Amino acid sequence: EMLGKVLCTVLFMGALQSLAEASQGHISVVLLGATGDLAKKYLWQGLFQLYMDQVSSGHSFTFHGAALTALEPGQRLMFDVLKDLSCPPDEAPDRCAVLKDQFLKLSQYHQLKTAENYTALNREIETLLRQEGLEEAGRIFYFSVPPFAYTEIARHINSSCRPPAGAWLRVVLEKPFGHDLQSAQQLAAELTGFFREEEMYRVDHYLGKQAVAHILPFRDQNRQFLDAIWNRHHVERVEIVLKETVDAKGRTSFYEQYGVIRDVLQNHLTEALMFLIMELPANVSRAEEVLQHKLQSFQSLWGLEKHSAVLGQYQAYASQVQEELQEAQDYVSTTPTFAGVLIRSDSLRWEGVPFLLTSGKALDERVGYARVLFKNRAYCTQSETLRDAGHSQCKAKQIIFYFGHGALDTPAVLVSRNLFRPVMPKDSWKEAVAQTDLNIFGQPLSDYYVYSPVKERDAYSVLISNIYHGRKDFFITTENLLASWGFWTPLLDSISHQPLRLYPGGVENQHLLDFEMVSGGLAFTLAEPAKLLNPSRQMPSDFRAIQSKFRQSPLVSAWPEDLISQLASDIENTASRSVARSGQFHLALSGGSSPVILFQRLARHHYAFPWKHTHIWLVDERCVPLTDTESNFFSLHNHLLQSVRVPYFNIHPMPVHLNQRLCVEEDRGTELYAKDIVALVANASFDLVLLGVGTDGHTASLFPRSENGLEGAPTVVLTESPVKPHQRMSLSLPLINKARQVFVLVLGKGKHDITTLLSRVGHEPRKWPISGVSPGSGQMVWYVDYEALLG
Amino acid sequence: EMLGKVLCTVLFMGALQSLAEASQGHISVVLLGATGDLAKKYLWQGLFQLYMDQVSSGHSFTFHGAALTALEPGQRLMFDVLKDLSCPPDEAPDRCAVLKDQFLKLSQYHQLKTAENYTALNREIETLLRQEGLEEAGRIFYFSVPPFAYTEIARHINSSCRPPAGAWLRVVLEKPFGHDLQSAQQLAAELTGFFREEEMYRVDHYLGKQAVAHILPFRDQNRQFLDAIWNRHHVERVEIVLKETVDAKGRTSFYEQYGVIRDVLQNHLTEALMFLIMELPANVSRAEEVLQHKLQSFQSLWGLEKHSAVLGQYQAYASQVQEELQEAQDYVSTTPTFAGVLIRSDSLRWEGVPFLLTSGKALDERVGYARVLFKNRAYCTQSETLRDAGHSQCKAKQIIFYFGHGALDTPAVLVSRNLFRPVMPKDSWKEAVAQTDLNIFGQPLSDYYVYSPVKERDAYSVLISNIYHGRKDFFITTENLLASWGFWTPLLDSISHQPLRLYPGGVENQHLLDFEMVSGGLAFTLAEPAKLLNPSRQMPSDFRAIQSKFRQSPLVSAWPEDLISQLASDIENTASRSVARSGQFHLALSGGSSPVILFQRLARHHYAFPWKHTHIWLVDERCVPLTDTESNFFSLHNHLLQSVRVPYFNIHPMPVHLNQRLCVEEDRGTELYAKDIVALVANASFDLVLLGVGTDGHTASLFPRSENGLEGAPTVVLTESPVKPHQRMSLSLPLINKARQVFVLVLGKGKHDITTLLSRVGHEPRKWPISGVSPGSGQMVWYVDYEALLG
Repeated sequence: EMLGKVLCTVLFMGALQSLAEASQGHISVVLLGATGDLAKKYLWQGLFQLYMDQVSSGHSFTFHGAALTALEPGQRLMFDVLKDLSCPPDEAPDRCAVLKDQFLKLSQYHQLKTAENYTALNREIETLLRQEGLEEAGRIFYFSVPPFAYTEIARHINSSCRPPAGAWLRVVLEKPFGHDLQSAQQLAAELTGFFREEEMYRVDHYLGKQAVAHILPFRDQNRQFLDAIWNRHHVERVEIVLKETVDAKGRTSFYEQYGVIRDVLQNHLTEALMFLIMELPANVSRAEEVLQHKLQSFQSLWGLEKHSAVLGQYQAYASQVQEELQEAQDYVSTTPTFAGVLIRSDSLRWEGVPFLLTSGKALDERVGYARVLFKNRAYCTQSETLRDAGHSQCKAKQIIFYFGHGALDTPAVLVSRNLFRPVMPKDSWKEAVAQTDLNIFGQPLSDYYVYSPVKERDAYSVLISNIYHGRKDFFITTENLLASWGFWTPLLDSISHQPLRLYPGGVENQHLLDFEMVSGGLAFTLAEPAKLLNPSRQMPSDFRAIQSKFRQSPLVSAWPEDLISQLASDIENTASRSVARSGQFHLALSGGSSPVILFQRLARHHYAFPWKHTHIWLVDERCVPLTDTESNFFSLHNHLLQSVRVPYFNIHPMPVHLNQRLCVEEDRGTELYAKDIVALVANASFDLVLLGVGTDGHTASLFPRSENGLEGAPTVVLTESPVKPHQRMSLSLPLINKARQVFVLVLGKGKHDITTLLSRVGHEPRKWPISGVSPGSGQMVWYVDYEALLG
Repeated sequence: EMLGKVLCTVLFMGALQSLAEASQGHISVVLLGATGDLAKKYLWQGLFQLYMDQVSSGHSFTFHGAALTALEPGQRLMFDVLKDLSCPPDEAPDRCAVLKDQFLKLSQYHQLKTAENYTALNREIETLLRQEGLEEAGRIFYFSVPPFAYTEIARHINSSCRPPAGAWLRVVLEKPFGHDLQSAQQLAAELTGFFREEEMYRVDHYLGKQAVAHILPFRDQNRQFLDAIWNRHHVERVEIVLKETVDAKGRTSFYEQYGVIRDVLQNHLTEALMFLIMELPANVSRAEEVLQHKLQSFQSLWGLEKHSAVLGQYQAYASQVQEELQEAQDYVSTTPTFAGVLIRSDSLRWEGVPFLLTSGKALDERVGYARVLFKNRAYCTQSETLRDAGHSQCKAKQIIFYFGHGALDTPAVLVSRNLFRPVMPKDSWKEAVAQTDLNIFGQPLSDYYVYSPVKERDAYSVLISNIYHGRKDFFITTENLLASWGFWTPLLDSISHQPLRLYPGGVENQHLLDFEMVSGGLAFTLAEPAKLLNPSRQMPSDFRAIQSKFRQSPLVSAWPEDLISQLASDIENTASRSVARSGQFHLALSGGSSPVILFQRLARHHYAFPWKHTHIWLVDERCVPLTDTESNFFSLHNHLLQSVRVPYFNIHPMPVHLNQRLCVEEDRGTELYAKDIVALVANASFDLVLLGVGTDGHTASLFPRSENGLEGAPTVVLTESPVKPHQRMSLSLPLINKARQVFVLVLGKGKHDITTLLSRVGHEPRKWPISGVSPGSGQMVWYVDYEALLG
């Protein structure tokens, strides 16, 4: 170790003498994991580029490679990398050779393993600075190590390697930063114990990609054109895509734990999304302003659910995992290698615009882009053949940030010529000469203004330069990271056992991975091919609704989706008949989770529903304000009423909130509701009452052994629920039984026991209130899904 | 005359002998205007086709050409036409020659001028039938005469030529059927005096075009595919287009009175629109059902206004009119020869889908079509170059009813192959072999399933056959006609002095007639070229709202339409700023008639309005139930709330109706409303209050010398109106004056006196309550139209 130190100090001296005027102070760069893959491939080259760019900046530099390897073999490994550093094509070869020689002299290897190692490193830096009479400007620690090592290293740096007051510390962290919200929070909390937020530079190398980094500046510099069109009225959809041809071979030990969503969507594609979707800050280079706008955008996103994504896995993946991880032959991986995700925002700007994020391995091409497709609002009177191709308003209008690879094989910004000629900074972007025969995104390249970087720069060079300049807007802050994990984690949880579509890989995938937006989510376009990943999980082929009897009443049973679709149709038919008969349809709806899919289906598929003549009543309500998310009415409003046109006068929430208080008897909300029913519903006989069943046999808010509502007058009652919120308002059984039609919806395995029980017992409403439902002169139909029925 | 009669009777005899077995009875067809253009070009050929088709039907026929021309020259003229009748290519030439000979023998000419002529014709028919021992099945009178002659002829037919009981009468009428709603109503009323509705067959020859006539059957036969996609969620836009290359030369005396909207859009294109837009009747061949659905569709259409259309006139038109109508050199025609119109429906099915109707003369090609373009909801993972062109879900999806001419030069139905293979009736439509090199609607023809008629038939043949078969669904009923005029007349009125875009005609038009949807209306894409059609008639060049001061507050004044549009924009801007500032927008609206147009404009033009974050309050209310048409809230609901998405919770009608009674003090509705305001509106300070002014100077429901509400606490009060309904609820002046912004809208000549008075008086709220409006720390703006301001 002594030898190494002496040797290196000597090396320094020689180099530093040529940098006598380090008026801006000295910067020490410590690269942890100096002999790893990333360091070899990008980081040393990036540091060399930094040196070349900043050698005359007034700063002096030393570069410290570090790893666990002992000094001598480590030194050898490191200098093997350094001697292969290349000179960029735009650098004069002579100057580069001199600078490379200097760079090698300024770089030394350290074994960093124990606390003493760190102390020693710190001492060396101090000694050197003292000897040379240099001020210290700052230290950069670049963590190119696996995340499990972060905490330990962070502790050492914090306790032994902080620069003196007045100099800055910048620690650079590489993903993965956790694998879900909880783990990310934990890691973040640990790091926060050692570093201040402004000291941490979390790398997402996509932010260093030139086309990604230019999204915000582009929006800023083209405000005059974009202000009017960067919104839901003009944008049809946005696609953010990273397709890879490589697969996970050789990396499955990492990949099997992460999968494509954690590897690409949660970070790279989300960051690009944020740049597109965020409200534009007044100053796009102020990191704090950008961050606040990003966080607001995360807030505006709809929560993801199972149906928001389509997932796939290339066929060879399973055997690669079995081989590399020594898993058994029957080991089944549920890790997706392909994902398409539909993201929506409820901001006023983007409401209704689909954002499609897609990434996968073993696809047909390597390409990355963010594509904003505008709506066609024009009609071109002249026939197609006579139109001026480049400028016709009837041609597609697009703005594409082309990250690289693909047909263009360069980062680029493309703007359809019928949109506008963009303002681009001349020093960094140049107009490209179109390859006339190239077709891209459905149009010849000549239909676009195409700009590419004057000087193509590797993402890591860009990022290292930004670390040097303290440009934190190119890095992921803790808040940003946690917001992103907060957004993605519910999807990751909900899909952990989803079946994956198997795909052969490459060109063979054909249309197998094409997908479509269907009723609020995504689905593959082609039906599932014969071979499923997980055949044991396949559902029985007979998907039809079966019809028979349950408790002497008609029974409709099917898989949930088919059941709901049948129920929705039956409700519409009942409604139409009612309106034909009496001009009105009085529908009483229950709360709870089961009806939500029904509400959505009614809202999205039943255009002919006579909403204008429908009165909406509540079967029961929780004693919370109507705007509380716990309120049955709130859910009904959210999933149904806000999408259809029921006249305001026909909507009858239960009056649980009167005189600024909830369900107080003196306020006589129950009487009020009963009076409204009598006034509007002929004979107080609802045309249709929709009920559910609880696992305890409750229905409406009529619970076993309830004092009110199980017998007596047909009225409205206050009841007590065994679960919170305890206070409820409910139609009474006798009132429900006056209905012309009662439909009972029962969904899910959780209801199997009560369903079985109900098939056996008689009329015992005090034990099982649902058993007391038997409409006097009306009809009752049970809608029970297979899981509830068959377990 | 005797000679003619004898001659003809002889001719009949010969022909009728070969038709001894007329077991279904005899049909007399009388073609009025037998020597006119339409008769020459289409009608005689159509009648001959009818004869060929029905010669063995069991009916016997005679054909009576009639005109004002005297017998002998008329006969000559008519037989000149008849001898040129052609045999259709699919008819055996021998049979055709025989049939043509018979047809000539069965046809005779009549001069029909005087009442006696009609009586004579009737006598001849009767005599013939008696002589031949034939039962009479019915009589067809085909009016191919100018509409001014309709009434006179109708009178004669009704009084002299009705068939005996048991036989039917069918009168066939050709457009134009009036030139606006009023004239159409008048004509209809006159005809109704002579004929029963079921006796009248109004021709729109578009209904005889095979591709138009097949729209409803297509929708019916393809329900399985269309049910899910024939709606706003899947349809992006619909274009209905008739482009002509010819101009109006030689027809300007007709055209100058009608123009393109009356000539093509009001009838042909509207009928095609109805077939596309109507809810599908259970039985599409039942005329009455189809009619009812059509009428409902008319109901669902948004009213057209000036901005709904773009209008043009080809350059040569003016000089053609000057020449043909002997007008002076400086005569300026305001008749449009080109129109693009944006139509919207507020049905649940079509809400938000643009229907673009376009027609023009002197365009670059002759073609007609109705095109339904579907949204692309797919993402195709495979790169474009590798996709299976025909079936990729990422290609445009379209259904096109191709009326004829254009690139295909045949009627056709086209369905994109990535949609579905349509069900088509094999006996009448055949799959066409694609011309591989043809590109149509942006795609190669091979991307479509293409069907063309097995036997191409002229529209008039189809219609004449339908008259014979009594298929009334192929004709325009009175109700249908009036609904269509009712829809188009407001546009015709509002554009009568609109400037037109001049276009050179043909290919030279280039992009001059391309147009775009902008903020709820249409506008030409290219800026107006230098030369305008009609500089003299242009409105005073400053069409701008004038801005100055009124009662020390800003005044905006303009013609009503522009004033309302300015006010609506200002409200939206206020709303956006409010939401940006506080997340909410509290808007208090007044009742009365003036705001109605404002409400409609807000509902239809302001997509970016932050309704989701808007709270709607009432400034005042009449003490009637909310569902009473007198209720301010009812009007607000009708014209605004039912068309936008304000959450239920944010709508705050005044509680005038409590405990089943109206505005009873003990029910404390005013307190309730005041409490709600305090609970929800920060500082009880509305973001915007919209007021009106009565001719007596009242505002809100605060009348001169009111005991309540003119001073005192900022609260809600009960007041008395001098006019019915007397009882009112109103915000008090002090509460109004807490608002951040107050806009006052004053419209119409009737308000001129009070406006003048208000410009002079000071703060005297007891005399003129409006003079007491002066928001303490807020801003007030007056919106007064020219008539109210200037008288």
